[in-house]
Amino acid sequence: MLNQSAEYALRAVVHLATLPADQQASAGDISDRTKVPIPYLQKVLRTLTRRGVLHAKRGMGGGFCLAKSSGEITVLEILNAFDSSPQRIETCPLGIKGHTHLCPLHTLIDEQVANAQRVFATTTIHDILGSDSEIRPLCDGLARVSLGLPKDNR
Amino acid sequence: MLNQSAEYALRAVVHLATLPADQQASAGDISDRTKVPIPYLQKVLRTLTRRGVLHAKRGMGGGFCLAKSSGEITVLEILNAFDSSPQRIETCPLGIKGHTHLCPLHTLIDEQVANAQRVFATTTIHDILGSDSEIRPLCDGLARVSLGLPKDNR
Repeated sequence: MLNQSAEYALRAVVHLATLPADQQASAGDISDRTKVPIPYLQKVLRTLTRRGVLHAKRGMGGGFCLAKSSGEITVLEILNAFDSSPQRIETCPLGIKGHTHLCPLHTLIDEQVANAQRVFATTTIHDILGSDSEIRPLCDGLARVSLGLPKDNR
Repeated sequence: MLNQSAEYALRAVVHLATLPADQQASAGDISDRTKVPIPYLQKVLRTLTRRGVLHAKRGMGGGFCLAKSSGEITVLEILNAFDSSPQRIETCPLGIKGHTHLCPLHTLIDEQVANAQRVFATTTIHDILGSDSEIRPLCDGLARVSLGLPKDNR
């Protein structure tokens, strides 16, 4: 359900969400922390910047940071940026003319997609980082990486 | 979420479920009714037979029929036969050693897959055919094709 670009993007965003608000991270830093290979990561970071998830500051001391708060970035937004969200079924996939709306089977499948989309649309990066799990989302190292906590545990 | 083989298989099974209990259908008949090309359909029918969904009777007057009642055939069973069911996430897809169980993000995604699987596992072909929809599942032509009803509407 999650393609590699979306997985890498989520790792990068999760990492950036744990940095202090005024801190930027270079692609090299993000690659070190998330274990995402640099060339692939750079493509992912460009897409996230173009989609308004990240802000890129050029030049010395520049780097990437979240373009908005982690509570405003949904999982669905990142999946959509990399075509990794399960797709709703809008019309009969078989092109049957008489099927002016979905048949019971396609309705059933579409409902499952809709349910998943709804959950991804209402879950933010902040929600994921605020989870009670001791496992840090998508990155090596232990949590708890709650926002604003000291960084000694990363 | 549904690959072509699974879609074709569901069409064939839905069609066979609407036949009287003692009636067989040849691959040619099924192809005519479901608009699935014969060579592809034959592969699908062989898989369904091997998986115990269909029974194949050889020779003159032979053909295919359901190997059990439509209320015993789940959507998940057919999706699984063609690797078309969304896959649960059992272990960290990133192979992160410290992730002895799923991180919050992979847990979230896995829950959506589990929910969908649960619905597919508890929905049978009989349920789909018994739906109130006037649209016949996966096949051209109008419903209502409730089991046991006269066939004049197919």
